[in-house]
Amino acid sequence: MTVKAQLAERALGVETFLSGCLRDRSVPERLLSAMEYSLLAGGKRLRPVLTLSWAGMLGPGDADFADAIMPFAAALECIHTYSLIHDDLPAMDDDDLRRGRPSNHKQFDEATAILAGDGLLTEAFGLMSVASMAGGLPANHVLRAISVMAAAAGAGGMVGGQAVDMEFTGRTGVPLEELKEMHAMKTGALITAACECGAILAGAGETDVENAREFGRAVGVAFQIVDDVLDVVGDTATLGKPAGSDEAMGKATYPSLVGLDRSKELAAGYVGTALERLAPYTGGDREFLSGLARYIVDRVN
Amino acid sequence: MTVKAQLAERALGVETFLSGCLRDRSVPERLLSAMEYSLLAGGKRLRPVLTLSWAGMLGPGDADFADAIMPFAAALECIHTYSLIHDDLPAMDDDDLRRGRPSNHKQFDEATAILAGDGLLTEAFGLMSVASMAGGLPANHVLRAISVMAAAAGAGGMVGGQAVDMEFTGRTGVPLEELKEMHAMKTGALITAACECGAILAGAGETDVENAREFGRAVGVAFQIVDDVLDVVGDTATLGKPAGSDEAMGKATYPSLVGLDRSKELAAGYVGTALERLAPYTGGDREFLSGLARYIVDRVN
Repeated sequence: MTVKAQLAERALGVETFLSGCLRDRSVPERLLSAMEYSLLAGGKRLRPVLTLSWAGMLGPGDADFADAIMPFAAALECIHTYSLIHDDLPAMDDDDLRRGRPSNHKQFDEATAILAGDGLLTEAFGLMSVASMAGGLPANHVLRAISVMAAAAGAGGMVGGQAVDMEFTGRTGVPLEELKEMHAMKTGALITAACECGAILAGAGETDVENAREFGRAVGVAFQIVDDVLDVVGDTATLGKPAGSDEAMGKATYPSLVGLDRSKELAAGYVGTALERLAPYTGGDREFLSGLARYIVDRVN
Repeated sequence: MTVKAQLAERALGVETFLSGCLRDRSVPERLLSAMEYSLLAGGKRLRPVLTLSWAGMLGPGDADFADAIMPFAAALECIHTYSLIHDDLPAMDDDDLRRGRPSNHKQFDEATAILAGDGLLTEAFGLMSVASMAGGLPANHVLRAISVMAAAAGAGGMVGGQAVDMEFTGRTGVPLEELKEMHAMKTGALITAACECGAILAGAGETDVENAREFGRAVGVAFQIVDDVLDVVGDTATLGKPAGSDEAMGKATYPSLVGLDRSKELAAGYVGTALERLAPYTGGDREFLSGLARYIVDRVN
């Protein structure tokens, strides 16, 4: 089975969980539609799968344990989705398309899109807290993981990265170090936390938690570089969003700073770093995670 | 000492905590300024004080315990503040003034205001998770309280209430029952959760948790009715926001549906319900909470 097929298979459980997770609260109809419109738009579910795979590799690995982790893993997709909705807003990146469909505020309206994002972000923490109460995970593990997630998703992480990215737009001569720091916050922090939280929820020791974190960090950088590269070499139909939009927006990117070839070399280097962190482990989850790391530099969208 | 002075005194500790709580993360400068601009704009800190007072009344009541509760209590103010920032946005209520100063997006810009709100909401859950790890509160109590907060602040609570409020704007003939339900979500849910979480964090039994919740629910409704009334009878300088803005926006309010006098009667009735829930308790926190409930109908801003 290809890594892409394995990723899709692992994403299936996440998909099923996500499709029901907003239904048990009395959410106003239009708001619920807007939240589900973006949440169920069929992304790769990379972040939840990373959490599940790291937890599976380091934890007991049975079905009950995977079920207990699921709400927390799904919460990562809620956070990722909310960030896409808010990033697409006219005041931010002003994107009309997302995953080949109208972005949330085009399909609904700006107010609804803002609130759908707010709702998904809040719901994410509700799902995380449920991971212990319903699934029997130790409460102190879940609390530590919530703390890691909040730091990664917040103003010192993902939200801060988007703020810096906005400041970069149209600015020429952004140094590579600043670009790296911005990406580490904007996309890296959440991917890193996805891996780290999987290890924490599995009750892993500090060495394993560090391996998870550093694997996530390296994979996150590689992922972003490839994203930048694809914006240059990809086409709109394959990407599901307008190709060349970074250049049109005047965004600093890896290709614009170091060129296409050097960007690809850098991405491959980070994947190597990620693979080193998997060396201590064995089994199916390890094989999947190493394949996934390699797939990131080979993907086309 | 008047209730207003007591409220101000209890808010002091919250104020001190809030003024430092965003500083230990590496938040980009402009974003941090925007978050603190609204967070430290000097509100009444009603929600954190409710949490602290209920926790104080039902818990051990010493200084260490109050310190342990503080991050969680302060988190409520982060959530309240984020909701004000997002509600003021042009796509939402489009308010230029808040607490007598330019609203966040007027002082900064729309993108920054959206991100400042996102950052404060995320930080809130970070603070909640810290309440156990740093302060030694039982992890399962904190997790339950986080779950209650997420439900209250999310799409089935505060965020959903704002969505319904947007739908009401400009619509004529909103029935009183629907208006009540909207307010219960938009402002009631967070005030209710503030009280309930105080009881939960104090390790209180279910009867006490229910008293806290129902006290909060009644106080929340009274608070909203008085807010509506003040928008009609208050003046811009005292309110710190434009008086008569509800009417100008075509919003359904208690005065517009049942008249001023009946609105005041209703508010007084809810305060009575709140006071009944305090009957089992004694001590300084009880006296303060009963004074606070009465103050809500007597306040001028």
